[in-house]
Amino acid sequence: MSRRFQTIALTGKDRDPRVRDSLLILARHLATAGVRVVLDPAIRMEFADVPVEALAEAELGRAADLVIAVGGDGTMLYASRLVAGHDVPLLGINRGRLGFLADVTPGEMLRRLDEVLGGDYEEDHRLMLEASIDGNGTDQHEAPRHRALALNDVVLQKRSSVRMLDFENWIDGVYVNTHGGDGLVIATPTGSTAYALSGGGPIVHPSLEALSLVPICPHTLSDRPIVVRADARIEIRVLERHESQAEVACDGVLLGELGAGDRLLVQAARERVVLIHPRGHDYFRLLRSKLHWGRGRQGRFDGSADG
Amino acid sequence: MSRRFQTIALTGKDRDPRVRDSLLILARHLATAGVRVVLDPAIRMEFADVPVEALAEAELGRAADLVIAVGGDGTMLYASRLVAGHDVPLLGINRGRLGFLADVTPGEMLRRLDEVLGGDYEEDHRLMLEASIDGNGTDQHEAPRHRALALNDVVLQKRSSVRMLDFENWIDGVYVNTHGGDGLVIATPTGSTAYALSGGGPIVHPSLEALSLVPICPHTLSDRPIVVRADARIEIRVLERHESQAEVACDGVLLGELGAGDRLLVQAARERVVLIHPRGHDYFRLLRSKLHWGRGRQGRFDGSADG
Amino acid sequence: MSRRFQTIALTGKDRDPRVRDSLLILARHLATAGVRVVLDPAIRMEFADVPVEALAEAELGRAADLVIAVGGDGTMLYASRLVAGHDVPLLGINRGRLGFLADVTPGEMLRRLDEVLGGDYEEDHRLMLEASIDGNGTDQHEAPRHRALALNDVVLQKRSSVRMLDFENWIDGVYVNTHGGDGLVIATPTGSTAYALSGGGPIVHPSLEALSLVPICPHTLSDRPIVVRADARIEIRVLERHESQAEVACDGVLLGELGAGDRLLVQAARERVVLIHPRGHDYFRLLRSKLHWGRGRQGRFDGSADG
Amino acid sequence: MSRRFQTIALTGKDRDPRVRDSLLILARHLATAGVRVVLDPAIRMEFADVPVEALAEAELGRAADLVIAVGGDGTMLYASRLVAGHDVPLLGINRGRLGFLADVTPGEMLRRLDEVLGGDYEEDHRLMLEASIDGNGTDQHEAPRHRALALNDVVLQKRSSVRMLDFENWIDGVYVNTHGGDGLVIATPTGSTAYALSGGGPIVHPSLEALSLVPICPHTLSDRPIVVRADARIEIRVLERHESQAEVACDGVLLGELGAGDRLLVQAARERVVLIHPRGHDYFRLLRSKLHWGRGRQGRFDGSADG
Repeated sequence: MSRRFQTIALTGKDRDPRVRDSLLILARHLATAGVRVVLDPAIRMEFADVPVEALAEAELGRAADLVIAVGGDGTMLYASRLVAGHDVPLLGINRGRLGFLADVTPGEMLRRLDEVLGGDYEEDHRLMLEASIDGNGTDQHEAPRHRALALNDVVLQKRSSVRMLDFENWIDGVYVNTHGGDGLVIATPTGSTAYALSGGGPIVHPSLEALSLVPICPHTLSDRPIVVRADARIEIRVLERHESQAEVACDGVLLGELGAGDRLLVQAARERVVLIHPRGHDYFRLLRSKLHWGRGRQGRFDGSADG
Repeated sequence: MSRRFQTIALTGKDRDPRVRDSLLILARHLATAGVRVVLDPAIRMEFADVPVEALAEAELGRAADLVIAVGGDGTMLYASRLVAGHDVPLLGINRGRLGFLADVTPGEMLRRLDEVLGGDYEEDHRLMLEASIDGNGTDQHEAPRHRALALNDVVLQKRSSVRMLDFENWIDGVYVNTHGGDGLVIATPTGSTAYALSGGGPIVHPSLEALSLVPICPHTLSDRPIVVRADARIEIRVLERHESQAEVACDGVLLGELGAGDRLLVQAARERVVLIHPRGHDYFRLLRSKLHWGRGRQGRFDGSADG
Repeated sequence: MSRRFQTIALTGKDRDPRVRDSLLILARHLATAGVRVVLDPAIRMEFADVPVEALAEAELGRAADLVIAVGGDGTMLYASRLVAGHDVPLLGINRGRLGFLADVTPGEMLRRLDEVLGGDYEEDHRLMLEASIDGNGTDQHEAPRHRALALNDVVLQKRSSVRMLDFENWIDGVYVNTHGGDGLVIATPTGSTAYALSGGGPIVHPSLEALSLVPICPHTLSDRPIVVRADARIEIRVLERHESQAEVACDGVLLGELGAGDRLLVQAARERVVLIHPRGHDYFRLLRSKLHWGRGRQGRFDGSADG
Repeated sequence: MSRRFQTIALTGKDRDPRVRDSLLILARHLATAGVRVVLDPAIRMEFADVPVEALAEAELGRAADLVIAVGGDGTMLYASRLVAGHDVPLLGINRGRLGFLADVTPGEMLRRLDEVLGGDYEEDHRLMLEASIDGNGTDQHEAPRHRALALNDVVLQKRSSVRMLDFENWIDGVYVNTHGGDGLVIATPTGSTAYALSGGGPIVHPSLEALSLVPICPHTLSDRPIVVRADARIEIRVLERHESQAEVACDGVLLGELGAGDRLLVQAARERVVLIHPRGHDYFRLLRSKLHWGRGRQGRFDGSADG
């Protein structure tokens, strides 16, 4: 049985005129259809005569049945933090090209939206990570110093370009390896096509319950990406080393620094993000489009094969 | 509840004197312990006064409660074909160094074996692939032309060094991509540390139900490894191209050729291989040993970090 | 001082109607300009009233002041073999998109040709390789069994998908390494953007006098591409191994098989290929075009950076 | 004709007791042989009765005929800055294992040193880079803000783990590409086995006059390492982007920050480093040792090939 969307929240970076245009068109269309339209308080633009209500961020997740984010995949990451912990699905409208997460284009936006309002859509449940930093001297009964969610990735990275980072990792309490290098990306399947891909990680299909651990510029050439089950508990410790400093970011938002003796704990979060796609969503078509696949023989010169 | 091993089959390449030595020691030890010892008919060596029975290959899987393979991981792949389809677990004794699959060393062999006979062991269920080639003009009611199992990988590869291969793949009936290059490795987690790793694929933990698709020397540089769910049905079609020829191998054994219009079908098999490990088996320790991890700062010269 | 082009040879795969069209237009234009037009004997098409002469392949290199090849980079490789050993430069007309070697498009063809005839062009001298196989039992005073030139690469590759190849290489008589894997690409800078690139080799600027040695799917993960001076003498020996077979191809043309004990010798040839480019030739523009660089943030999803 | 070494300077990190031991043994041996022994002022240890003179750093390059550095390759990088600009060669004694630059082991140290003093050695001239940052608003007649030498590499890198860096590069005034990612390594052949290797760059033989440009975690998957001639003038400009910050390091020593509009200029320096090796120095042996090559079939599991 499909969900009913009676209150819909809008979000997006309204500095961008293309985003403003889409937000206004969406709000008017929804209001006309009898939907209550609420706004992320970060939105400052005017909606003229369209009845909209700005809600506090904390209210948004409770009040809305659906959040529509207008923008690129970065906006979707932002919106995923708005809805995390509430069972509110997320629909992404891109500003132009297709995004991995915001996969509705402005040109088809209203038609697709009507389909979704009519119950004709697909749900796509995406894994999130939760990361926390446990201080060295922290009392075990205290809460961890920092905790954050990530839809894409948790990244441990050296802070300075001058020094390499040495760190150990454990999975489910079992020692895995001691790494030297620039850091480590721990990615969800969603994040496998983001930073982890640049680091040499594989593409992981979103329907697979798995996490990727992708070392960044590892010193040891055989230190390769590992894919593990999504219920793995990952623990990282930075080794003491002259001048080395590490920081941790969740979806590109700084979580904190990791000093020698501190532990970074990463595991799948209870929270999931529910993406709403129009019927006929095709992950592989997105891949082909974003990665420029399938355009024939471009990419390298292979004289022998090419006439 | 642990299994009872009353009839144990032995296999191994007895051309190798180290293998012969271990086989004889094992047979004597087992016979003394009251175990019925049966032999893979491929074994030609003499067992002197030790009571052993050579069985036909077809009998082996039915008669044995356990197969012990002595040799490298190649011998384990061979043995996995002996036991596939029977619920007979497999224990591997290496000839020297640790293997990924044959992880008991000769030095600890008898002690470990007694533990196993005493019920003190771990079971490790490994995914297998089944591959078949569907001919172009094949009647749909006919059986596919060829079918084989693989514990490591199914490899599609060009036959000639002269021409590139063009092929399309589908997953669960959905078109994925058109690839140009030398071929494709479809690997189980077990095979992720074999050929797929040389092709740039990730290490996939054996407990993850997943398959890796790793393009070999792809023409398009963004044609990257993909990891999908183990229940994916993978289909490959070779495109017509002047002089190109493809062949398919399962665990290094030729399955057949793939001509233009033929389809290669690959999916997880119903059959699994059950590996028996001594208590305390540690996959990450094997990785560290086989991939030369964790030896400090070897692997590259990083003067700035190394005194 | 620029060259005078009074006799110009045409070549191209005239199965392709686009190639036929361009060849006819070129022949007419050249004849009208008073140039003697000669043809590669492989060309079968009719030139109607245009005065053209078919020459034997051996004649072509002697008679022509310039060879114009119409087609893709594969046609340029073919044409490079026609001119090798003669001081005859080569101009490439592509059929559509830019090629790395055939970098004049049909739309600008006649204008560019007139510039070239008028002396307004750039010469681009490209390194070629020579490869030969020295038989095991060959009398030292005999000529090597096979010898061929390559503008792109000499490729050593296993013949069967079933077995890995083991081989050793030496540079200038010094032992380098023992490789296990699918083979090795020895590439000129020209070939660095062909097969070598798919194998993980670097792009080498054509003005650099260097050779790349790129292992194909190497077993050892730290077995990485090496770039050496162009005057290096490279020697490969295939190690004896059950069932392994190797073959050697030069620019995609089979040179021969390499058995255990045979030696493959590769070094820069005395012969060079002189490419003629219109003024303003820009290698990096070709790279950007062929490798889809510089199209903004495509290629991976980086939500945090992309709105 | 070989050099005469009458005044020899010693350097090394004398915090390390192994370094202290070697320095003392060397000093005594040299003094006994009638060589004048001078010290890098950074050395604080006592030499008991051995006659040594501490010189100011600026004096060292002028006074010494040879600098002996005891330590790892990092110490050699430090020493290369001491001798740069003076025609003083450099000999490296490692503390244990072989280094790429410090390739004499303590066990053979005195014997090798006597050979060198006797004129029996090889010279190995290594390319250095010079890097400078040209400020946006800098008066053209002013000197660049910062300038430094590097024996290994000049590294441009984002300062924060949160944002990607966008930058353009030019070679000899010709636009090459716009890169998005973590940064860029510009490496000498010496540095090709350091950080550049972790970033996916090739090994470049030290005798090749070439520079490698290796993008770090590039956003665009076809943004690959390029090798160019050593006389290339490389220019980098960081593009304006919200919050992005770049810093530049030479051999791991911070040169400065690069803001939007600033230019990083890198080219081969006039200065070279002359390494002294004992006779029989073998670069490929170092590679095999440091990269764990040639140890048979380790590195991946290839069951089919391995018994």
